[in-house]
Amino acid sequence: MLPALKRGLPLTEPMDQEQIERIDAASMDILETVGVVFRDDIALEDWRRAGAKVVGETVYLDRALVRELIKTIPETFTYHARNPANNLPFGRDHAVFVPMTGAPFLRDLDDVRRNPTLDDLANFHKLSHMLPAMHSSAHHIVEPYDHPISQRHLRITYSSMKHSDKMFMGMTTSPKNAEDVLDMCAILFGEEFLETHPVVTGNCNGNSPLVWDETMLGAMRAFNRRNQPVLCSPFVLGGANTPASVAPTVAQLNAEALSALAYTQVVRKGCPAIYGHYLSTVSMKSGAPMAGTPEISLMNLMIGQMARFYGVPWRSSTALGGSKTFDSQAGYESATTLMALQMAGTNYMWHAAGWNEAGMHCSMAKFVVDAEQCAMAYRMAEGIRWDDFDEAVAAVSDVGPGGHYLGHAHTLENFQRAFFMPDLFDNNSIEQWQAEGGIETNERALAHVKSLLADYFEPKLDAGVDEALRDYIARREREIPAADALNQEY
Amino acid sequence: MLPALKRGLPLTEPMDQEQIERIDAASMDILETVGVVFRDDIALEDWRRAGAKVVGETVYLDRALVRELIKTIPETFTYHARNPANNLPFGRDHAVFVPMTGAPFLRDLDDVRRNPTLDDLANFHKLSHMLPAMHSSAHHIVEPYDHPISQRHLRITYSSMKHSDKMFMGMTTSPKNAEDVLDMCAILFGEEFLETHPVVTGNCNGNSPLVWDETMLGAMRAFNRRNQPVLCSPFVLGGANTPASVAPTVAQLNAEALSALAYTQVVRKGCPAIYGHYLSTVSMKSGAPMAGTPEISLMNLMIGQMARFYGVPWRSSTALGGSKTFDSQAGYESATTLMALQMAGTNYMWHAAGWNEAGMHCSMAKFVVDAEQCAMAYRMAEGIRWDDFDEAVAAVSDVGPGGHYLGHAHTLENFQRAFFMPDLFDNNSIEQWQAEGGIETNERALAHVKSLLADYFEPKLDAGVDEALRDYIARREREIPAADALNQEY
Repeated sequence: MLPALKRGLPLTEPMDQEQIERIDAASMDILETVGVVFRDDIALEDWRRAGAKVVGETVYLDRALVRELIKTIPETFTYHARNPANNLPFGRDHAVFVPMTGAPFLRDLDDVRRNPTLDDLANFHKLSHMLPAMHSSAHHIVEPYDHPISQRHLRITYSSMKHSDKMFMGMTTSPKNAEDVLDMCAILFGEEFLETHPVVTGNCNGNSPLVWDETMLGAMRAFNRRNQPVLCSPFVLGGANTPASVAPTVAQLNAEALSALAYTQVVRKGCPAIYGHYLSTVSMKSGAPMAGTPEISLMNLMIGQMARFYGVPWRSSTALGGSKTFDSQAGYESATTLMALQMAGTNYMWHAAGWNEAGMHCSMAKFVVDAEQCAMAYRMAEGIRWDDFDEAVAAVSDVGPGGHYLGHAHTLENFQRAFFMPDLFDNNSIEQWQAEGGIETNERALAHVKSLLADYFEPKLDAGVDEALRDYIARREREIPAADALNQEY
Repeated sequence: MLPALKRGLPLTEPMDQEQIERIDAASMDILETVGVVFRDDIALEDWRRAGAKVVGETVYLDRALVRELIKTIPETFTYHARNPANNLPFGRDHAVFVPMTGAPFLRDLDDVRRNPTLDDLANFHKLSHMLPAMHSSAHHIVEPYDHPISQRHLRITYSSMKHSDKMFMGMTTSPKNAEDVLDMCAILFGEEFLETHPVVTGNCNGNSPLVWDETMLGAMRAFNRRNQPVLCSPFVLGGANTPASVAPTVAQLNAEALSALAYTQVVRKGCPAIYGHYLSTVSMKSGAPMAGTPEISLMNLMIGQMARFYGVPWRSSTALGGSKTFDSQAGYESATTLMALQMAGTNYMWHAAGWNEAGMHCSMAKFVVDAEQCAMAYRMAEGIRWDDFDEAVAAVSDVGPGGHYLGHAHTLENFQRAFFMPDLFDNNSIEQWQAEGGIETNERALAHVKSLLADYFEPKLDAGVDEALRDYIARREREIPAADALNQEY
């Protein structure tokens, strides 16, 4: 696994201080005068106690209160994995890449689009474990349809823990499910360790504009109480649930994120929390969410500035695509967003591999190609090396006009690290490409997935811990009715 | 046509002043002590007269002389098109998008890879004319194989002039060919106008490391003498003809570009000139040039800083791809480079549409998709609009928590311009996509090309000028033997 990325390139910051303050002021005005709906009695009671004005379900948040609350959110912390070699510094100029999650379909090893199973999910966790630029095995990369909905979170969590020793994410499909995840984390890491070390990340989506619901808030509290970070994620379809304009959309999104970030500190002061969002723009022709549009890139650049203004780490969605297949559209959309997020300075680069069809499917082929793209973006974001500069400039003199460098000592010493060589892109001549079967990227990537999975070794999990996790799941599956209602996280 | 892009986003500048000066010093040392080979007697004589030390074919350029010479290169100028509405400010924060050129194959309307004809070239010029983000019809986008090599430059130039009224490029395949191009420009614009207005762009490739050949230098002089700009383009295959390292490669490339830029001012003081390069990194596994790699992006960011340090406009290669088909690889590679160049602040964004297979073919499908991507990159690079900020934030208050914006007056007024809606990407549901035939991007784009070409109207060209151009071509085709040697520009 690559270490957490430490950025060495300057970020793109399109707003000056006055513009940042203009967004901040607009967001604070929204919080004070329009208010935010918390559809949850416990949250309303919490807010009353914290000194907010509550009218019905609407909470009016004074800017002084918001600022006071968010200031205890840690700007940096270390994510802990069950293999300490995979621990990751997080926040400020550090970034991690995390696979996509939540796909109700996959495009499988035969490029067939179908509902996923627990075995499919295990394969994605195995790939996440093996791919160097993936820093996490996430959680339900795909939704395993072969297990009862009400019990899935247990099997998903176990799969994340078992098939990878990198950090992972925790289901927030209900407060109870979140507690199960955290209980399993306590088994894996120890209750006391959990209390003082971030080991798992939850995601709580808002209902934009300006609504947080009971399920999300309950799950958020479960994470906060155990001192675990949650992504506070307004769910923005720009133009549909926000104004049809870039800067005002950021103002609304920022108000929403602040309201949830502030709430995490009401639940537990000092608990880590991450400024989140899901962000798309909507086609005004069809109503469809779009990916890779210039406004999504601009908004991400702005959101990065806002998160840094508040001193809070932030999350974005990385390799999004709207295509139904892994064609050029998917490539353009994903690469555009990935590049924009590198320049935006995103800390938690979620949905960094596999996402296509607006999140409706995870593509096994795209998963590995995206992961390689992340490794390339990582390399770019590290910036420029100068350690061999004088030596290499001396080589120019050795080689002289009209020469070549292929046999020069500097080349022989440096070629392995000098220029990234993607495994999944074919840059050979058409003659050689044809001789090798004329294979396009989708098929080439699927062959790579097969070879990776064939080489997979399971990272050792302590037998006692494994048994305790299995016992926990068995007990909870006896307790939870198998026919609970669907409570799907997106 | 979109106006010339005026960038509103801050550029990404990975080097501090000291690092810029370190590159500059290394380049100047190369010019002074290693020297540059000019394989051309006239150039050697020119350099002697200009005060350089010349030993054999090697010219040793003193840094004071280089600085003195390049200081007369205009930092900005206006490109003139035969339709004055298509004139373009150029340099500093302005950028133009120019199609790819030089492809010996095309992927045609039936996605068949074959040698192109003059009709194919005309189609690309028609598309360039119609696509709003393309600012130029370039020259030999594809190489027309159905006309004798020695006379092709005449037909190519006429096709550029005839099928589009945007600016264009001029062939530099030999000094004589370049003079023909410039004579035809004199017919189109008038000799006196040409003398004082940039109307055409030539490209002169170097033979890295540190060699300029007679053909290129002769063509360069032809352009310079008529006061027309040339792209001074070292041809860099990083690791093969430069050191295997990012910063030293830029130091060598910078020395090469400076040597040609300086020479343009020896030929004609004050003549416009553009800092160029063709830039790829080479796979050390296969020797193949690669596209979209992180080091290409980093080098472009650095080259942008160097060009601005010298106060000279600069060119890069935009939508490069190495794939044999228009698959996801092509999408990732092109989008990555496009985004990097936007952040690098490139002025002359060449090869911005159609390039695939390392330039071996121009894809009609990719041509229109790239052009739409350029329009999206353009929108992003313009930056953030604030003019409707207060009004739109008021809409947040109108709509309130849990509402939606689709019917709000601000949305109705702004949705058309608020969020870019790509025509060539499908973001519909899979059900709708399947109902419409389940068409992938390549096929969708080809259908779009057909409909564009069906709607093409030829921009009016003055009948007298047209006749004079045709007479010129007829005369020159009588004079030039049809069986001249191939002298291919890349």
